Amino acid sequence: MKKKKLTHIDNNGKSKMVDVSGKKITLRTAIASGIVKLGEKTYKAVIENNISKGDVLAVAKIAGIQAAKKTSYLIPLCHNIFISNIDLNFIFIDDKNSIEIISEVKTESTTGVEMEALTAVSIAALTIYDMCKGVDKSIVIGEIELISKTGGKSGEYRKK
Amino acid sequence: MKKKKLTHIDNNGKSKMVDVSGKKITLRTAIASGIVKLGEKTYKAVIENNISKGDVLAVAKIAGIQAAKKTSYLIPLCHNIFISNIDLNFIFIDDKNSIEIISEVKTESTTGVEMEALTAVSIAALTIYDMCKGVDKSIVIGEIELISKTGGKSGEYRKK
Amino acid sequence: MKKKKLTHIDNNGKSKMVDVSGKKITLRTAIASGIVKLGEKTYKAVIENNISKGDVLAVAKIAGIQAAKKTSYLIPLCHNIFISNIDLNFIFIDDKNSIEIISEVKTESTTGVEMEALTAVSIAALTIYDMCKGVDKSIVIGEIELISKTGGKSGEYRKK
Amino acid sequence: MKKKKLTHIDNNGKSKMVDVSGKKITLRTAIASGIVKLGEKTYKAVIENNISKGDVLAVAKIAGIQAAKKTSYLIPLCHNIFISNIDLNFIFIDDKNSIEIISEVKTESTTGVEMEALTAVSIAALTIYDMCKGVDKSIVIGEIELISKTGGKSGEYRKK
Amino acid sequence: MKKKKLTHIDNNGKSKMVDVSGKKITLRTAIASGIVKLGEKTYKAVIENNISKGDVLAVAKIAGIQAAKKTSYLIPLCHNIFISNIDLNFIFIDDKNSIEIISEVKTESTTGVEMEALTAVSIAALTIYDMCKGVDKSIVIGEIELISKTGGKSGEYRKK
Amino acid sequence: MKKKKLTHIDNNGKSKMVDVSGKKITLRTAIASGIVKLGEKTYKAVIENNISKGDVLAVAKIAGIQAAKKTSYLIPLCHNIFISNIDLNFIFIDDKNSIEIISEVKTESTTGVEMEALTAVSIAALTIYDMCKGVDKSIVIGEIELISKTGGKSGEYRKK
Repeated sequence: MKKKKLTHIDNNGKSKMVDVSGKKITLRTAIASGIVKLGEKTYKAVIENNISKGDVLAVAKIAGIQAAKKTSYLIPLCHNIFISNIDLNFIFIDDKNSIEIISEVKTESTTGVEMEALTAVSIAALTIYDMCKGVDKSIVIGEIELISKTGGKSGEYRKK
Repeated sequence: MKKKKLTHIDNNGKSKMVDVSGKKITLRTAIASGIVKLGEKTYKAVIENNISKGDVLAVAKIAGIQAAKKTSYLIPLCHNIFISNIDLNFIFIDDKNSIEIISEVKTESTTGVEMEALTAVSIAALTIYDMCKGVDKSIVIGEIELISKTGGKSGEYRKK
Repeated sequence: MKKKKLTHIDNNGKSKMVDVSGKKITLRTAIASGIVKLGEKTYKAVIENNISKGDVLAVAKIAGIQAAKKTSYLIPLCHNIFISNIDLNFIFIDDKNSIEIISEVKTESTTGVEMEALTAVSIAALTIYDMCKGVDKSIVIGEIELISKTGGKSGEYRKK
Repeated sequence: MKKKKLTHIDNNGKSKMVDVSGKKITLRTAIASGIVKLGEKTYKAVIENNISKGDVLAVAKIAGIQAAKKTSYLIPLCHNIFISNIDLNFIFIDDKNSIEIISEVKTESTTGVEMEALTAVSIAALTIYDMCKGVDKSIVIGEIELISKTGGKSGEYRKK
Repeated sequence: MKKKKLTHIDNNGKSKMVDVSGKKITLRTAIASGIVKLGEKTYKAVIENNISKGDVLAVAKIAGIQAAKKTSYLIPLCHNIFISNIDLNFIFIDDKNSIEIISEVKTESTTGVEMEALTAVSIAALTIYDMCKGVDKSIVIGEIELISKTGGKSGEYRKK
Repeated sequence: MKKKKLTHIDNNGKSKMVDVSGKKITLRTAIASGIVKLGEKTYKAVIENNISKGDVLAVAKIAGIQAAKKTSYLIPLCHNIFISNIDLNFIFIDDKNSIEIISEVKTESTTGVEMEALTAVSIAALTIYDMCKGVDKSIVIGEIELISKTGGKSGEYRKK
């Protein structure tokens, strides 16, 4: 059986998961955040809970929590891990008509939960967009980033 | 059977889908975009296809396409619709070490595909983060927004 | 090629979907209901929105809507169909410390949405249980049934 | 950066998972049950395996097992956990033309499996409805409740 | 804003769905098949329904039907379409200790169901493997192929 | 309460998971393989990366990895387990115009990953079919089998 060397796979199809077998199970946490920039009118409607599709933040919070649990099905090379806790909070930034979303995710596992925290923020932000898009289609989602992580061999990370 | 009036549901649990029965089936399209801001070193590694987890954009593109198909399972009040096409493209912005993601989604349905286009961009961006996070955890995802939509009763939208 | 007659498949493995090709696309609706029987203390806590896990009915409503969209993945022989609308409402029955859940689902399709309406009620009921189980594990979910359906060849159904 | 106090989130968007990090991994079990009330003719058809859509209980059993594994995607604040075993059994109650469904779920985890057991029963019951609804739409699903649980800090629970 | 030409995307990240907008909705069917080669002892146990994990073909049939509905979530560039019918049948080939799986899938859509038919066969075959692997790990799944398709612009296909 | 003995359940609805509670958590691996037989023209197009739908192997690899994570949702009696690593590789067999797919899956769990390895191969093979079916519908997928497994009480298995 003659086999050809696969040169172009080395370059193109080379995606690979990180092998986490043998890594220690430790408590790992990640905090991520993002900002949804609304127009003044929409911002006021969200704060006053006057969006006709419903309570924007209640729905966004549930969506974020559920998305975090599905992270490994969304991000191709993520591991499917047990998540100990997912928490989302919202901060109103009046002078920017913006809502900041902050997620905190915890696990006791062999790999971290950065992607779970970032996914929770992203889907919560998209849900805010969806709830408000009948009023305003110019909403912008931005500044999605990792704030900090703890646990694991690579140790702590804290955004500068 | 005595029943109590549900005052607090009116305020809290009032989430509701938009009823699209009776709406006309027409071709509807949506274009969305977002930007992933990398550091210089990571940006160069992505361009030169030197990220050890694999071909970043190939994986991100697949992830974005697949996520668009799952939009109604991620965004609670979205309708599950047949999608005719999902396309993602990447633009390298050298002087900002940034990758712009542009998605275009089409349907022939009774409701639009803005959320599908925005979800495709968001999950593609998160996948870029995931592929590169071993190199750089300070990546920021931003400027996720709707560029344009066509079709349906509300007509065209074009970002100003 | 000798083939053996499959007698035991005729009895055991015979599950089959209903072939709906050729059926007419019409508006079809279904209304279902169910009752969650709480203890007095838990009932009061739900009404007063004092359950520590959060706003019980807001979470249950979202869970019910999302479950309806997943019906064909949960009930093996259901068709995956486009759903035009899903609505859930809650009625408080004070003298029975019970919450009645009523769902209404609509589609324009070749098959009905009875299972979607019943699934929405069931998962909303289970979510109420989950939110309250820290307080009371003796909650009982009951009387899940179809109230009415319209559309399709079999015509209207109305619970007697 | 001025931030507004989020009074209405305290009331509305407050849903939260239980943080199970630090909890001990122990064997935990849950047994749940529910009853499907059929008409006499349908009951007889199920017992005699004469329902045209197939073997009702074989399909319901598979549906219940698969649903238990998806519990955390259906019930918003449930944890995604590894399940060691899921078992479903059916008891025929002749004088009530009813089928009782009993599920038993086991895990070795930091949190219990009550919701998994209740979800298995609920989806198995809905599947029985789906298989039989061509014959009888007046089927009622009821008495879904937790029979017992073991393991974990809160200890044993047994239905009175 | 200077933008770099993306030469390497042209080669690597170029995956794209087929745009089916504007295509005609017609009845489309696909028939696929595959063969599971068992050892003599295992083959006999399946035929006589003596596999301890349960009724092999009943479980495989359900698994195949459910997988067909999930095809677009498994095969990245497939469209999510409404499926009118999925049917699976098994043929025992005594002199080869083999089970042939035949699936037939129908849709009224703008694109075909070849992948749905092939996915149904593949997952049914894997389920047979799973049910029997306690007895025999040397089972081989083979000859998964499209038998025929009808409908659509490309017209009929029939395996030679 | 009179209860009837369920004789026919013993034969028909008897599917059951293997109870893995109490089993030891150990490193377990599985290697599986399968072969996609293409025509000469299609084989050449895949090797030269000239298939219009995109980079066939890059997409197939992602599809296989993602499918392995979903195994327990596809194969009814599989356990949902944490997977430490999934790797897929492709070998070109020139004289047979065939691509061999080899998957390796690892876990630290109480049960093995044979089904995950076989599912990864199967879905990667189907994805190759999907990418190439515009060129050639006579592709055949075959020889899907377990090459080896290690770990667990049943010990090592190696294909003869």
